[in-house]
This record gives sequence, structure tokens and C-alpha cells, in this order.
Amino acid sequence: MHNSGHDFSDDERAGLYRAIYERRDVRSQFLPDPIPRPVLARLLNAAHHAPSVGFMQPWDFILIDSPEIREQVLASFNEENAKAAKNYTGERQQTYRSLKLQGITESPMNLCITCNRSRGGDHVLGRNSVVEMDLFSTCLAVQNLWLAARAEGIGVGWVSIIDQSRLASILNLPENVYPLAYLCLGYVSEFLDKPELETKGWRSRLPLEGLVHSNRWGAEPDDEALLEQLRR
Amino acid sequence: MHNSGHDFSDDERAGLYRAIYERRDVRSQFLPDPIPRPVLARLLNAAHHAPSVGFMQPWDFILIDSPEIREQVLASFNEENAKAAKNYTGERQQTYRSLKLQGITESPMNLCITCNRSRGGDHVLGRNSVVEMDLFSTCLAVQNLWLAARAEGIGVGWVSIIDQSRLASILNLPENVYPLAYLCLGYVSEFLDKPELETKGWRSRLPLEGLVHSNRWGAEPDDEALLEQLRR
Repeated sequence: MHNSGHDFSDDERAGLYRAIYERRDVRSQFLPDPIPRPVLARLLNAAHHAPSVGFMQPWDFILIDSPEIREQVLASFNEENAKAAKNYTGERQQTYRSLKLQGITESPMNLCITCNRSRGGDHVLGRNSVVEMDLFSTCLAVQNLWLAARAEGIGVGWVSIIDQSRLASILNLPENVYPLAYLCLGYVSEFLDKPELETKGWRSRLPLEGLVHSNRWGAEPDDEALLEQLRR
Repeated sequence: MHNSGHDFSDDERAGLYRAIYERRDVRSQFLPDPIPRPVLARLLNAAHHAPSVGFMQPWDFILIDSPEIREQVLASFNEENAKAAKNYTGERQQTYRSLKLQGITESPMNLCITCNRSRGGDHVLGRNSVVEMDLFSTCLAVQNLWLAARAEGIGVGWVSIIDQSRLASILNLPENVYPLAYLCLGYVSEFLDKPELETKGWRSRLPLEGLVHSNRWGAEPDDEALLEQLRR
């Protein structure tokens, strides 16, 4: 019934899951090798084929290789990161300070994926009840690019410790355009087996079965077979 | 140099791109067949392996099969959709009213992916400057699930025309938990070749080369070879 020509082969399906499980948020393993244009075009095209509310396609892609611009972005990171470090004390602060949280200048390319909040006019289909759907759509584009990058052997790191209004000004963004994701991209020496924050003891992976509810918040699924699958 | 054991085979890479290009926002093609538990577990696990700010993993998954709850959600959709239709006039409003925008009761399963905004405590690493990073992380989980579903032959539709506070109350969510994505899931008779909004003339796909900037907003890349790749 549902095996009618739209099925994936085992290898194709394995490829998708491999990208999902082996994707990493890369900060430290960047190589300087440039990203060839056909590869870069594939990554951008993957992002452009994300779902978007009302087919709004609110994203733009700013490719950043200018050292001057990157230095300005790095300066904003450093300021924000110094503020963030003050949220922790003692050993936790030491661990925080020991973490490398960006690869802005080591990666061969930075990419800002923006969200144009006025694209598509005043009334975007499906964005009437939840006005943030444009931002959410742009996130889906980020994840498409992130997974495609993994399949191409390219690491991606999302730098979220930046002042967004300063970033908007550095990149000359119009008022209606929000710099949603600032990404560092490049080939890598390796993809780590596990997320760095897990390996370094910052935080553990939560057990999936504790995150699944049945029909209402807090009701555990009355389905031992499913829970057993979720524990694997 | 960057061909060291972490490379994807051609079939694996093709599988990832196939999922990206053949994924659809499904509203009309759902089959009633239930989703087997091992498949459902793979979808949830794919979502759970999305990147998240500070390894926060802010998501929870509410599996909804109760007809009563779905009827309540559908009622909220109908109210919000009636409001939204009033944004359009004439032929555009007729087209709007002719579009099927949800499959809440026809799909065998609904899934709400929520964002617990207080998970991880007061200071989540990387969420100091941009407090919405938890919502953005949850979106990345949605996209992982959406792509995994496509690879499993399962369609997903995101219903964004709902009152989120009403939805939160229907699902009994605690105050700090936001119902980010309300999804309909099920096997499908077909995956459409193109997005339905494109086929029905609601909106066209934007040319990718017009969305790519160099270093600052509005500066076209001075790279004809790249632009040529983007036009393909």
C-alpha cells in the first residue's frame, strides 16, 4: 500500500540517519581548505528547500570571508562571552572558560542566515496565529544546511553568543531582516563521536523515554513496546 | 586531507539530499495505516539528536491519538482559519478557502513538539545573548523528524493555524512549556512533486541566486562561477 515508488533504499535511508547522528556543532576542528563552489551551491540549495510557512522562503544567505567583518563579529562574541561567563562560579566557571565556543576566524567561511520578516507582504498564509513562524521556518533551513554539510564532510558551528543588533549593524541589514543564525563552515580534521558538551561533562543526553507523553502533558505512554524501543 | 573515514558514500549522500528535496508539507494524502512502533521510535530519536543550545534538549513529544483531543485542536484551527481567510479578498480569498491546510483527523497520529523554556536552569550555555535559542533548537528537532519521516515514507504536515494558548490548555502544558509545532503524521498515497502552494499558484519559488549576498546585505557575490551554480 505505502510501498509505491516513493520508498527509499536501505542505503539512502542509512545516509539520512547517518547525517542526523554524526552531525556535530563544530568549534575546534576546522581545516583551512576552501569549500568548492559546487559544494557550497549544494548546501545553499538544500537550505533553500526547507519548508516555510506559506511558502514564504524568508531566508537570505550572507557569505562572509572578509577578515575585517569577522574580526568585528569576533569582538562581539568576546564581549558577550565575557558577560556570559559571569553567570557561573567556581569549577563550573572554570569549565565554561575552558570551552571553545566558536571558530569564527579559523573556519574558511562564515555564513549568516537571515530572516526577512516582511517577505511575502502583510498576510503570509499560516502566519496569522503564530507570527514567529517565519523565524521557525528559517531554522528549518539551517538544519537542512547543517545535515547536507555533514554529508559533504563539512563541519558547521552555530555561534549564538553574539549581540544580534550589533551583528545586524555589522552586516548592514535592513530593519526588517533578523540575523537568525551565524554559522562557521569548513572541512574538518574529524567529527567528534559525541557532542563536546557531553564529553566534557557540561550536560548529559536526556533519556528519550522520559520526554514522550501520551495525549496530554505528563501522561506516560501506556505502551511498553514503544517505551522499550525508545530506550534503545 | 578531508577524506579520512568520515566520508559518505554516494548513495548515503544521495539519500540525504533525496529526503531534503522530496520532503513535503502533507495535508491531503494521509492513509489510515498506523505507524509501527520501531518506525515511530526512529523518528523521535532522530528529533532527539538535533543540535540544541548548550545541549539543552528543550523538546518533549506529545503523541496524540485521542479523537476528543484532536477535535478540540481542529476546532481551534477552524476558528483561526476563519479569521485568517478575512485577510484576503476576491479571487485570492477563494483560492485561500480552497486550500486544505491540515490533516488533523485523517492522519493516524498527531504529534506536538514542545519547548520547555526553563529546562537546564537559569543560565543555559549559549542562550545568554539570544533567549529564543531554545525555540530555535526545537525547530531543528522538527526538521530532523520531518526528514526522517520522508525517508520512512511517512508524510508530515505542520499546522500553524492554531491558537497556541488554547493548544497549551488542551494539552495541559505547564506554564513554561511552549507548544512549538503541531504535526500530523502518517503514511501517504503519494508525495507531491512540488509544494502544493507552488502548484496552486499561491506563491512561486524564489530564485536562489537573488538570496545570496557577499559579506554585507545587498552586495551580490562577485563570483560568476558560484552564481552559475546557484542558477541550476
